[in-house]
Amino acid sequence: MRNSMNLLLLHPDDFISDKHVQIRGRRLLHLNKVIKAKPGDYLKAGRLNGKIGRAQLLSIDSDIAELSIELTDTPPPALPINLILALPRPKVLRRILQAATSLGIKHIHLIASWRVEKSYWQSPFLEADKIHEQLILGLEQSIDTQLPEVHLHPLFKPFVEDELDTIAANSTRLVAHPQATEAIGSTPLNALTLAIGPEGGFIPYEIEKFAELGFAAASLGPRILTVEVAVSSLISRFAVNLENEGRSRHN
Amino acid sequence: MRNSMNLLLLHPDDFISDKHVQIRGRRLLHLNKVIKAKPGDYLKAGRLNGKIGRAQLLSIDSDIAELSIELTDTPPPALPINLILALPRPKVLRRILQAATSLGIKHIHLIASWRVEKSYWQSPFLEADKIHEQLILGLEQSIDTQLPEVHLHPLFKPFVEDELDTIAANSTRLVAHPQATEAIGSTPLNALTLAIGPEGGFIPYEIEKFAELGFAAASLGPRILTVEVAVSSLISRFAVNLENEGRSRHN
Repeated sequence: MRNSMNLLLLHPDDFISDKHVQIRGRRLLHLNKVIKAKPGDYLKAGRLNGKIGRAQLLSIDSDIAELSIELTDTPPPALPINLILALPRPKVLRRILQAATSLGIKHIHLIASWRVEKSYWQSPFLEADKIHEQLILGLEQSIDTQLPEVHLHPLFKPFVEDELDTIAANSTRLVAHPQATEAIGSTPLNALTLAIGPEGGFIPYEIEKFAELGFAAASLGPRILTVEVAVSSLISRFAVNLENEGRSRHN
Repeated sequence: MRNSMNLLLLHPDDFISDKHVQIRGRRLLHLNKVIKAKPGDYLKAGRLNGKIGRAQLLSIDSDIAELSIELTDTPPPALPINLILALPRPKVLRRILQAATSLGIKHIHLIASWRVEKSYWQSPFLEADKIHEQLILGLEQSIDTQLPEVHLHPLFKPFVEDELDTIAANSTRLVAHPQATEAIGSTPLNALTLAIGPEGGFIPYEIEKFAELGFAAASLGPRILTVEVAVSSLISRFAVNLENEGRSRHN
């Protein structure tokens, strides 16, 4: 996936005053090479975990760009879905983090599962700055500023027994499971905690542990999807139900 | 994306009789290296554009595998969505073809658009056998046998003026458009023709041409998604509406 920088996302270090920022590195390169921005140009900009608005380019060269900013709008609403995901292969993880972020997910828990290769937990892609990078790309793509939180849980049992109940508090609980007999419904939802297994699915013991906490196993139908497609597909499917709930509450 | 071979998909050339097949090449390698199949083992198998059932491995070595087959079940239902997609970057196209196939799409039209780089049409990935390969991977992943049709339309105007009305006959017509003011609804649908633009979207002239044919421009909300995520997201979103229609018809 090559994301577009649809938003110039401003980090705390960029600010030299409330109305004035300096940009270097990757974003500067993008301004120069892709956008070919010139002094006077306006760009959509937003402050990390803050408001969105516009920036006007004051000066730019190969070392630094200076912009004045005016940030007035709130970022798009978050999707009230907690994503619990069996740790995918590192290369796929990057794309999934970007995709989930761009879809508006704010809480991602990467967990162990029997079918997750232990070696994945050693991947450099799991280092905090590498994960941060993917989240930033997802925000820039989707014109959002609210940084998602990503939590790593390399042990399945303590996660499910000690943490999951709190994480899923006040939300509908679902675990996607190819062998489930219940189809995923279209009931309006307030908030959702959605668990998605590894390629090959969670093992019966794991499904049982989820069930003990009230997670209903729901099937996507006879088709088996890659984890990557399943994540986008399931999030989008439930986004509809969450919106319907929004509508019925407001009508 | 690395697809799983959840189905041993049998091609016409594999058959030495109705009940007996010989496998070589990529699928043989998969049987040997990934599945580590042994004589006597059963595998899920299906005939391209035919039925699904099981195969029993009779013999296997590094050159050839022989299997007896029993194909009794119909493949999963197709999703009644015609996908009209501005030709994506070749690398992304491969993943999108696999994803759309795995989600059950059977009609894909790759079209020109102002923001599609002309050079994409010269990509070797657009050769018929390269496209076929991605579709096969999507079918193997999703345990389906019905090969999608992919049509290339390198000229926008003749496609829209001379072909699109027939393609979209008897279906709801939607074009995904970030600037649209109408949100995508949740009305049950019978069948859908869904047009998705390139990164940056269709240009106003193109949206107008779609509108002349009754395509409503619908927004996914304030977030801009990559084409890859948008395709999985939109298909899954409408799959819900199509299922709801199925339910209401059957109740």
